[in-house]
Amino acid sequence: MNQINQTSIQVAELANGQAMSIPVFTVGDRNTGPHVYIQANMHGAEVQGNAVIYALLEKLKTVRLSGSITLVPYANPIGCNQKSGEFTLGRFDPITGENWNRMYHDHTHLVEEFAIHHAQSSEQEIRNEFKNLLIKKTDELLNQPLHTMNTGMRIAVNLQRLAHEADFVLDLHTGPVSSKHLYCPEYAQASAAYFNIPHTLLIPNEFDGAMDEACFCPWWALSEALKKQGRQFDVINEAFTVELGSQEQIDLQDAQLDANSILSYLTYKEVILEGDYQPASMNRYACYLKNYKTFYAPMGGMVEYVAPLGEHINAGDTLVNILRMDKYVQGEALNPIKFEHDAIAILHFASASVNQGTELYKLFTNYFEL
Amino acid sequence: MNQINQTSIQVAELANGQAMSIPVFTVGDRNTGPHVYIQANMHGAEVQGNAVIYALLEKLKTVRLSGSITLVPYANPIGCNQKSGEFTLGRFDPITGENWNRMYHDHTHLVEEFAIHHAQSSEQEIRNEFKNLLIKKTDELLNQPLHTMNTGMRIAVNLQRLAHEADFVLDLHTGPVSSKHLYCPEYAQASAAYFNIPHTLLIPNEFDGAMDEACFCPWWALSEALKKQGRQFDVINEAFTVELGSQEQIDLQDAQLDANSILSYLTYKEVILEGDYQPASMNRYACYLKNYKTFYAPMGGMVEYVAPLGEHINAGDTLVNILRMDKYVQGEALNPIKFEHDAIAILHFASASVNQGTELYKLFTNYFEL
Amino acid sequence: MNQINQTSIQVAELANGQAMSIPVFTVGDRNTGPHVYIQANMHGAEVQGNAVIYALLEKLKTVRLSGSITLVPYANPIGCNQKSGEFTLGRFDPITGENWNRMYHDHTHLVEEFAIHHAQSSEQEIRNEFKNLLIKKTDELLNQPLHTMNTGMRIAVNLQRLAHEADFVLDLHTGPVSSKHLYCPEYAQASAAYFNIPHTLLIPNEFDGAMDEACFCPWWALSEALKKQGRQFDVINEAFTVELGSQEQIDLQDAQLDANSILSYLTYKEVILEGDYQPASMNRYACYLKNYKTFYAPMGGMVEYVAPLGEHINAGDTLVNILRMDKYVQGEALNPIKFEHDAIAILHFASASVNQGTELYKLFTNYFEL
Amino acid sequence: MNQINQTSIQVAELANGQAMSIPVFTVGDRNTGPHVYIQANMHGAEVQGNAVIYALLEKLKTVRLSGSITLVPYANPIGCNQKSGEFTLGRFDPITGENWNRMYHDHTHLVEEFAIHHAQSSEQEIRNEFKNLLIKKTDELLNQPLHTMNTGMRIAVNLQRLAHEADFVLDLHTGPVSSKHLYCPEYAQASAAYFNIPHTLLIPNEFDGAMDEACFCPWWALSEALKKQGRQFDVINEAFTVELGSQEQIDLQDAQLDANSILSYLTYKEVILEGDYQPASMNRYACYLKNYKTFYAPMGGMVEYVAPLGEHINAGDTLVNILRMDKYVQGEALNPIKFEHDAIAILHFASASVNQGTELYKLFTNYFEL
Repeated sequence: MNQINQTSIQVAELANGQAMSIPVFTVGDRNTGPHVYIQANMHGAEVQGNAVIYALLEKLKTVRLSGSITLVPYANPIGCNQKSGEFTLGRFDPITGENWNRMYHDHTHLVEEFAIHHAQSSEQEIRNEFKNLLIKKTDELLNQPLHTMNTGMRIAVNLQRLAHEADFVLDLHTGPVSSKHLYCPEYAQASAAYFNIPHTLLIPNEFDGAMDEACFCPWWALSEALKKQGRQFDVINEAFTVELGSQEQIDLQDAQLDANSILSYLTYKEVILEGDYQPASMNRYACYLKNYKTFYAPMGGMVEYVAPLGEHINAGDTLVNILRMDKYVQGEALNPIKFEHDAIAILHFASASVNQGTELYKLFTNYFEL
Repeated sequence: MNQINQTSIQVAELANGQAMSIPVFTVGDRNTGPHVYIQANMHGAEVQGNAVIYALLEKLKTVRLSGSITLVPYANPIGCNQKSGEFTLGRFDPITGENWNRMYHDHTHLVEEFAIHHAQSSEQEIRNEFKNLLIKKTDELLNQPLHTMNTGMRIAVNLQRLAHEADFVLDLHTGPVSSKHLYCPEYAQASAAYFNIPHTLLIPNEFDGAMDEACFCPWWALSEALKKQGRQFDVINEAFTVELGSQEQIDLQDAQLDANSILSYLTYKEVILEGDYQPASMNRYACYLKNYKTFYAPMGGMVEYVAPLGEHINAGDTLVNILRMDKYVQGEALNPIKFEHDAIAILHFASASVNQGTELYKLFTNYFEL
Repeated sequence: MNQINQTSIQVAELANGQAMSIPVFTVGDRNTGPHVYIQANMHGAEVQGNAVIYALLEKLKTVRLSGSITLVPYANPIGCNQKSGEFTLGRFDPITGENWNRMYHDHTHLVEEFAIHHAQSSEQEIRNEFKNLLIKKTDELLNQPLHTMNTGMRIAVNLQRLAHEADFVLDLHTGPVSSKHLYCPEYAQASAAYFNIPHTLLIPNEFDGAMDEACFCPWWALSEALKKQGRQFDVINEAFTVELGSQEQIDLQDAQLDANSILSYLTYKEVILEGDYQPASMNRYACYLKNYKTFYAPMGGMVEYVAPLGEHINAGDTLVNILRMDKYVQGEALNPIKFEHDAIAILHFASASVNQGTELYKLFTNYFEL
Repeated sequence: MNQINQTSIQVAELANGQAMSIPVFTVGDRNTGPHVYIQANMHGAEVQGNAVIYALLEKLKTVRLSGSITLVPYANPIGCNQKSGEFTLGRFDPITGENWNRMYHDHTHLVEEFAIHHAQSSEQEIRNEFKNLLIKKTDELLNQPLHTMNTGMRIAVNLQRLAHEADFVLDLHTGPVSSKHLYCPEYAQASAAYFNIPHTLLIPNEFDGAMDEACFCPWWALSEALKKQGRQFDVINEAFTVELGSQEQIDLQDAQLDANSILSYLTYKEVILEGDYQPASMNRYACYLKNYKTFYAPMGGMVEYVAPLGEHINAGDTLVNILRMDKYVQGEALNPIKFEHDAIAILHFASASVNQGTELYKLFTNYFEL
C-alpha cells in the first residue's frame, strides 16, 4: 500500500486578500526511478482531469512503483472559479484575455550555452545538469520582485517549477465538445501507442506557451544542439497534453478508463512495475499539427453539429447545418455546410449560436495509422 | 399550400446605432378561427425553439387551417448575441442581471373596472372587449416617451403586444440540461394531455413576469371577478411555456417531434383541421409548482450528475457525486449527495463546477399521473 | 485606547473547495450602550466602504465609546472577486443574475403573532424579545439543510444574523458614477441631518430585499401593529444604505470625511461620547422614493454625460449628448437629450456605450430641503 | 465647403443573422495629394475616437484639402456592443480571448521578393507598386473561402484593406485610465512633435499584430531590404496609434483638441493646406518601447492609485496604496507600494480591485525630451 502525501502551494491572491492554493499529491520514492508530473484543470472548465487524478490516486495506492509521481488537480484556482452565466469562463484570464495555457516560460535559449559548456560531459551528467538548470532558472523567475510577473504567469511558472523535476509530464485537458486525443511531440511518437487514445496530434518543436512545450522543447533543442556537435543524445524526457473529452463534465466511470490509459504509459516507462496496465487494442490515427484544420463558420447562425466526433468523414460530407430563420421567405433558412477533405472530426464548438468566423470544428486531415 | 408571410419588428438599438429586429411569420386567415402566437429564444441560449418554428412553418404550408398563426423566432436579438466565453450569456440582461423572461407587463389590475363596466355584456362581447383592452393598454405602454422604458421591457412588451392578439400562446424555452416539460396554468390542465410532453408543471394564477403569465393571468383573473358577480365565464385563452429540452443545442430531428406535439395541441383547439396530428400515447405526470423543488449544492466542488433526467427516483437515491480533491487525504474526496423524497428529476445545472448554493437539480415531488 | 478584535465567518465555498470568509471587527462593550453594525462591499465593485471602515477603525481606537460596534468589510467574497474584463462584475450573481443586495430575508410576517403575544409586555421587554426573535429566526434559517439555500442568500443571511443584533445598521454602498446620498426610512428622517450627505432618499416601509429594509421593516411594522392595539411604540432601530460616491474607486482622503460623517451620526445616537464629531453645515435635500426618477436611453449610442452630479438642474436642461455617427450624413449625429423636470442629478451610468433603454441617470424630482 | 460621403462595409454576421456594418466617411480628392486613413473604436470601450472623428468631419468641411481622407468610426461592431455588467467588454473577442487589435495581417514577408524584382524600378514606381501589392494581397485574403477566417481577423483585414490605400494611418485608441500618448515608429520620430501629445512611445519594426504595425512594418522592411541592395529609400508611409486618454468616456470638448492635434499633423504632411492647425507649444517626452515598464500588483487587494498620470515621478515615490483589511489586526492593512525608478506614469488599471499580478501602472522610464 503506497502512501499518498498531500501538500499545497500558494499561487495567487484575490482582491479581498484570499490566498489561492493548489493541492499537490505525491506518491513513491524519488530515488528508485523516474519522476512523473501530472496536472489537471489549468483551463477552468476542463474538470475531468481532476476525476482522472482521483482515479489515479486510488489505483496508485496498490501498484508496485519504481520512482515517484506528483499529481496536481485544480491547477488554476482562479480559472476554475470564474463564472459568467452558468458556465465556467476559464480558458483565459477574464481581465486580459490571455489563454492560461500560453503563459509558461520558454527556457530553450539556455540550450546553446549549456551545450558548449557540457561538450565533454557524460550523457548522465548532461541529463542531471540540464534538469537542475531548468529548475534553477525557474526558481530565479519565481524569486524576482513580485511586481514583475502577471497573474497567469505566476500560476504557470509555479506549476512549471514542479514539472521540470519530472522526466514524464502529462497535462490533462479537454476540448469544448470533443473526442479523446493526444498532443505528442514528434520525437515521442512511439509512446502514443501506449495510451488508450485513438487520435494523436504530432507537434513540432515550437514553443507556443503551453506546459507540454515548456517541458519538452528545451530537451529536444538540447539534443539538436548536441547533434550539431556531432553527438547523439536521446531525448528521454517526454511531455503530453492529454485531451480527455468534453469540458464541463465529470464522469467517474470514464475517469477509470483514462487512469488505466495513463498507467499503461507509465508501465511502458517502467514507473509502474509488473502491473496489469497494458495498452488496449484499437486503431490509432495520427496527423501532423500543420494538417489539423480549423473550420470557421462561413455565416452567423444557429448550428446543428452533424459530423460525429472521432469518426472518419468523407470529402463533401456535411459538417453542420446552419439555421437562418431571417432568410426563410427570401433565401435559404437551412444551410448544410460541407467539408472538402477526407477527415476525422476531433472536436466542435460548445454553443449552437455562432457569429460568422466562430470556430466550428477542428479536424484531422492527411491522417495516417500510427 | 398555405402562404407564409414574413415581416419584422424593430425592438432595440445598439451602442453603434445598429437597429435590432425580430422576424415575424404569419400564416392563415384571422377571420376564419382562433389566432395563435408562438415565439422562441427569449433566453439567448435557448435556441431549439427556432428549429421547432422552422419545422412548424414547413408543416403549416400543407395543413388545413382554421384561423391564423403568428410565429416569432429569435425573440430577443440582444440576448442571443451576447457571448461570454464560448457560451451564450442570454438568460439575463448582462448589464442589469434582470431575467429577460421576467419583464412582461402585468395587466391584471385592469380586470376589476372592466368587470364592473361589462356586468351586462354578453360573453362574446366580453371576450372581444377584453382582448381589445389588453392590446390597447399594451400599445399605450409602447407609445410612452422612449426614456421611460428599459431595454428588456421594450423587447418584452413588443412581443406581448403580438401575443395579446392571440387566443393560444406558446413560449418555447429550454432548461439548462433538461428533459421536456410544460408550464401549464392550473385551469388549462386538460390541454396538457395534447402535447407529447411527459411532465407538466401546474402553475397558479400568480404573475411573476413571464410571457405565459402575462397572457393568461388577466383572463383567469377576469373569470374570477365575474364569478364574484355570480357569473360563470369559461377561460378560453391559454398560454404555455414549452420547455423543449437542453439549451445550446439545435436538433432538427427532435424539432420535428416537438412541431408534431404543438400541431396536436392546435388540432385539439381546432386551428388545424382534419390533420394527422394526434397526441402520442405516453404516461404523463404532473406536479403543482409548490412541489417543484430546487436542490442547491450543499458544498462547493466538481459535480457528476447521476440522477437521470425525466426518470423517477426513489427517496435516498444519489443525485450527484461531488468531488473534493482538497479533502483527499483528510476528509472525503468523493461525496454522494442524496435526495430525501421520491421525485422525477426534470433538469440539472449546465456546468460541472459549482459553488456552495448553486442550483443543482430541479425535481417534481408529490407528482401524479395526469 | 479601544481594542479592535478581529474574527471571521465562513459564508461560501468555491468549486475547488476554497472556503470564502469575511473578516469581522468588533470594538467596545455590548453591556454599556447600543450596538451598531456597519458593513461594506456587498456589491463587488463598491469598494470605498472598505476604506471607510479602515478609517473608522483607526478613529474608533481613541474615541470614548458607550456600547459597541461590529464592522464588516469585504462582505461578499464572491462578488468582489468576480471579474469580466478589467471591471468587477459584482452587482449580481454571475450565474443567476440575482442582485446580491436583494437576497436578505423578510421577517415582517413575524410581527402579527408577536404583537398579540406581547400585548401586555413592557416597551423594554418588547425591544428585547423582538430582537431575540429576529436573531433566533435567522439562526433557524442558517441551520436548515445546506441544500435548501442558494449562494447569495447564504451570504446575505449570515450578514443579516450579525445585523439583527444591532440597534443601528449602516450598509455602505456606492453608485456607478455617483454623488453621495443616503437611503433613509421615512420614520428616521430626523437622523439624516447628522450625516454629512447632501441628498437623502426617504423610503417607505416596503421590503425589497435589501439589508437596510431587512433590518428596519420588521421594527416599523411592529410599531404599526402595536398602534392598531392602541399602543404607542417608538421605533428606535434604524438602518441606512449609505451611498459613498462612485464604484471602482478607493480614496483614503474621502474615506476620512465619510468616517467623520458616520461618527457624527453615532455621536447623535450616543454611541460615541463627548467626541468632536458634529454634523457639517450644509444644505440637505430630500426626496421620496416615488419621485426618484430613472431616465433610460431613448436611443442606442455613445454618451457624453452633461448634467453634473449632485447639482440642481432646470427643466429643459440637457442631460446627455448621444453621438450617432451612423447618422452623420443623413439624420443627426449629435443628439442633446433633455429632462423635462427640475431635478438633482444623483448618479449616472458607468459606461459611455449604451443600448436603447439603458439606465442613463437617476434624479431627484419634487425634492425639498430637509 | 468639402463634401463628406458616407458608405459602409459589412464585416460580420451575428447568430441571429444580423449583418454588422461599419460606416465609412470620405472627403477630398484622391488625385490631388496623399491619402489618409483614420479609424476609431477597434477596442469596444475605447469610444472617444468616435468623438474625435465627429470633430474632424466638422472641421474638414471647411479646410483646404490636398488629397483625401477616409474616416472610420465604430471600427469593431462586435466589440463595441459586447457588455458584461455595466462596462463594455471590448478589448478581446469574448469567445476566444484574442485581442481585437492583434489580428491584422503581416505582409512583411512580401518584401524580399518585391525588392529583388524592383531592383531597377524608380522610387515612385516602387511606392506605387508596393502599395498595389499590399492592397492586392489583402484582397486575396478577403477572397479566400469564408470558412478559413475567424471573426476578428475578418474585421481587422477589412479595415486593413482600407488602410493600405493610405500614406498616413491613424488608429485612435484609449488606455484604461490614461493620459494621452502616441505610439510612433522609430523612423517617424520627427512627426511626433506635430501632435499635441506630450508623451511618445518609439516602437521598433516588429510586427505584433496591431494596425499601425501592419501598415508601417512592410514599408520599413522594404527600405531595409533596398538598403541591403545599396539603395537609399525614404519611408514616406507613416502609421500611429493615438491614445486619446481614458476608455468609457465621450468628451466633446476634448475631442476638439485632439482633432486640432491631428489636423496639425496633416498640415505638416501637406494634406491640409494653409490651415490654422499648428502644433501647440509643450514639452514632449519620448521613451523606447523596451523602457516602457509594466508594474504588476505585488499582492491582491483594493487599490488607491496615487501616482498622477502624465506626471514625472521620482524613484521611491508611492505608486499605489493597497488596502488589505484582512491584515488589520495582524499584519499591515495599508500598504504603500513604491516604484524604484524615475518615471512618467502613463496609465493605470481601471478597477480598484486587483488580484496579485494584475497590471497596475505602465510607466515611461529612461525617457528623454523629444
